[in-house]
Amino acid sequence: MKNTNKKSRIILAVNMRKFRQKLGLSQEELAYNSGLHRTYISSVERAERNISIDALEKIATAFSISLNQLLEE
Amino acid sequence: MKNTNKKSRIILAVNMRKFRQKLGLSQEELAYNSGLHRTYISSVERAERNISIDALEKIATAFSISLNQLLEE
Repeated sequence: MKNTNKKSRIILAVNMRKFRQKLGLSQEELAYNSGLHRTYISSVERAERNISIDALEKIATAFSISLNQLLEE
Repeated sequence: MKNTNKKSRIILAVNMRKFRQKLGLSQEELAYNSGLHRTYISSVERAERNISIDALEKIATAFSISLNQLLEE
């Protein structure tokens, strides 16, 4: 079974933007709250990064949501 | 905000074992179906790996579930 379309990266990118805007956070503010770099946040929102589970947890924590909420379709 | 306890890795490890056993798959069979290595599957189930979103998607696909189901608390 091949992973061809990076569907999960796109779901994540859409949800990140949605939660970020819902909380009125800029990418800079999310970066600060999650302990990740702004350019990293930006590339994840463009579905360019193969982000790790530990970094996903940092983002979910910054949004005060669970990891499965962050990845909900 | 610091990520101190690797909570997400543990949720994933528990769920992987649960779904694998529900489907009656060995770690070898899951490895084959997901295109990952058996020792990699084994280390993820021990919460030792900082697995990436692309690899998470391969595992979810092998279980025929969504990524947020794989990470449900």
